[in-house]
Amino acid sequence: MPEATYAKGLEGVIAAETKISRVDGENGRLYYLGYSITDLVEHCDFEETTYLLLYGELPDKAKLDEFRKKMRDARDLKDPIVEMIKNFPPKAKPMELLQSSVAYLSGYVEHAIQHSGSCNCRKTLHQVVQLTGVVAGLARIRAGKEYVPPRMDLSHGANFLYQLHGEVPDAFEGEVMDDALILHAEHGLNASTFTARVVASTISTCYSSISAAIGALYGSLHGGANEKAMLMVKEIGDKSNAADYVNKVLDSHGKIMGMGHRVYKAKDPRAVIMENYLLELSKRKGNMKYYEILKEVEAVFRARMEEKGKPIYPNVDFFSGAVYALLGIPSELFTPIFAMSRVSGWLAHILEQREDNRLFRPRALYVGHDERAFVPIDKR
Amino acid sequence: MPEATYAKGLEGVIAAETKISRVDGENGRLYYLGYSITDLVEHCDFEETTYLLLYGELPDKAKLDEFRKKMRDARDLKDPIVEMIKNFPPKAKPMELLQSSVAYLSGYVEHAIQHSGSCNCRKTLHQVVQLTGVVAGLARIRAGKEYVPPRMDLSHGANFLYQLHGEVPDAFEGEVMDDALILHAEHGLNASTFTARVVASTISTCYSSISAAIGALYGSLHGGANEKAMLMVKEIGDKSNAADYVNKVLDSHGKIMGMGHRVYKAKDPRAVIMENYLLELSKRKGNMKYYEILKEVEAVFRARMEEKGKPIYPNVDFFSGAVYALLGIPSELFTPIFAMSRVSGWLAHILEQREDNRLFRPRALYVGHDERAFVPIDKR
Repeated sequence: MPEATYAKGLEGVIAAETKISRVDGENGRLYYLGYSITDLVEHCDFEETTYLLLYGELPDKAKLDEFRKKMRDARDLKDPIVEMIKNFPPKAKPMELLQSSVAYLSGYVEHAIQHSGSCNCRKTLHQVVQLTGVVAGLARIRAGKEYVPPRMDLSHGANFLYQLHGEVPDAFEGEVMDDALILHAEHGLNASTFTARVVASTISTCYSSISAAIGALYGSLHGGANEKAMLMVKEIGDKSNAADYVNKVLDSHGKIMGMGHRVYKAKDPRAVIMENYLLELSKRKGNMKYYEILKEVEAVFRARMEEKGKPIYPNVDFFSGAVYALLGIPSELFTPIFAMSRVSGWLAHILEQREDNRLFRPRALYVGHDERAFVPIDKR
Repeated sequence: MPEATYAKGLEGVIAAETKISRVDGENGRLYYLGYSITDLVEHCDFEETTYLLLYGELPDKAKLDEFRKKMRDARDLKDPIVEMIKNFPPKAKPMELLQSSVAYLSGYVEHAIQHSGSCNCRKTLHQVVQLTGVVAGLARIRAGKEYVPPRMDLSHGANFLYQLHGEVPDAFEGEVMDDALILHAEHGLNASTFTARVVASTISTCYSSISAAIGALYGSLHGGANEKAMLMVKEIGDKSNAADYVNKVLDSHGKIMGMGHRVYKAKDPRAVIMENYLLELSKRKGNMKYYEILKEVEAVFRARMEEKGKPIYPNVDFFSGAVYALLGIPSELFTPIFAMSRVSGWLAHILEQREDNRLFRPRALYVGHDERAFVPIDKR
């Protein structure tokens, strides 16, 4: 066995090669397959972006039409899935339902249960699409309403809002939602994507791998930051309280949610886009409150950081929660929405892992007892 | 960032420190917390072994009694879980139900949904225990029979056989089943245990982490070897065909299931125990067929390997499938049984991970396109 050192949390270890996305942290850029997400948000929708992630190239019109049809055909949930949502324990958290439902969904696809390199998930797109219906369905059923069947003439994001609210959103809101899904679809080897690849490396199914990834995203160190940022906004209540709030948190060495990023040293490019959408949406809704609070938090926070010579910028989570709130989305759905977007990236990584697979099998360093003689219970 | 090299499959990388188990591959020994599994199988049952794995020490009598009561109190499945099993898609695989059910189960425990270091799973033992009921319940319901509520006076393994067959097994069969669970409960940082730790490192719940681990165990490179070994036994059919079978497989560079092990250079100590049980069980059942076929396969295989100067021994999977088959267990349950045993080890690793947690966040090496200019769809 080769010489090994202990890398806690695998820090600094390269665990995979990838062609899927690149984060240019220095310059605040994010690329999917070489295309900047700014371009993708401007020119593509979530369906086309998903094609890019799964096939590695932008589709021509015929391929895109075919792909789009396949994704839309997969939108509607079968009755047993709706039943499963209805029967879901009332106290359970939405992320648990998502994790559970993905493994459950697999039973409803003829050809998906495949332990093989050629993954049928790319062909069926079943779970990528159905997660969206599950999230919307769960929210409605928990609110005592009925499941709304999908509309086939709407973008993926607009249809989500339709299935959630039972009303077709206006064009701008539909676009914002769809673009938010694009922006969260992929971001390299984070903990959930790593989990998806580890499970895929055992030659388990796509369903198993994605279910596992949802479990990782559920962790409070991974998903959930935008929910917490929105909680902060609500706690602050008014922009006049923002400075006090930030100063108090920083003086007690607390953390402002949504500020700073491990990789981005410049502004998170997703935050730039979400901030613009938040501003426009706030104007259209005649509700500037969230925006004003966030901008005040940002200003105070950045001023204090600059005193210390540390330029720290907001990340995407800082603004996305407020955007979702203005779209009428309850905050307990923020992480599930992250999942229904990131599922495209997870699937892309699963496919990439399978193309040149090697089982992930790191070593553990044994630091426990030497051999111990067994002691009978009456002598303990 | 530190200098990094690409370790495919994380080979040779140490990803965790552990006190839970140690494999001494050179000498063919396996220790849980310093105690040899040979001692544990002789003196403890699965419940006591689970205590050892979760608390790090053997319990005194009072602690063991309390722990045993807690595990038995958690045996019975609530009606909604039985309903979930009944409604599970008929074509879906048992491992998918298991993965799904664990995430689902969490909704039925008051205090289990905790993103915190102090894991309530050790207190409730809920899912560790309930997996067994889910596996037995699934098998019965699929066979058109009713769910059998547990018996509280039987060992964990004996109760599994009772819930599966609806009849109390004889003392020896109960012991064999319980000891098989001990032998599969823990084996270091394999892919499923690594998955459990990665998900736990995000501070997700025990349920999420274990559900994810089940997804990894489902992979054909991880679980399933004993099912395949038993398939081989059935294919061979009679010991007189064994030599031909083995020679044919080896001549075409195929693999004999259950022979050899990455870590054990001597005989897998679990295989030694399972082989003895298989022999005794075969005699009691008056059915020597499986045993004779396996021993003939082993003899021919080892003779051929020794010609090449490669001593290769059977591992635990070589014998365990035949043991389960003689206990009347259908082969599609072999990997689920692995899960209902290994769950104790997974939980121990989750607890260990949480005690000194650091999010697993390895890096990916980007090997894809440089920045590409976006091409409008009508120009592609």
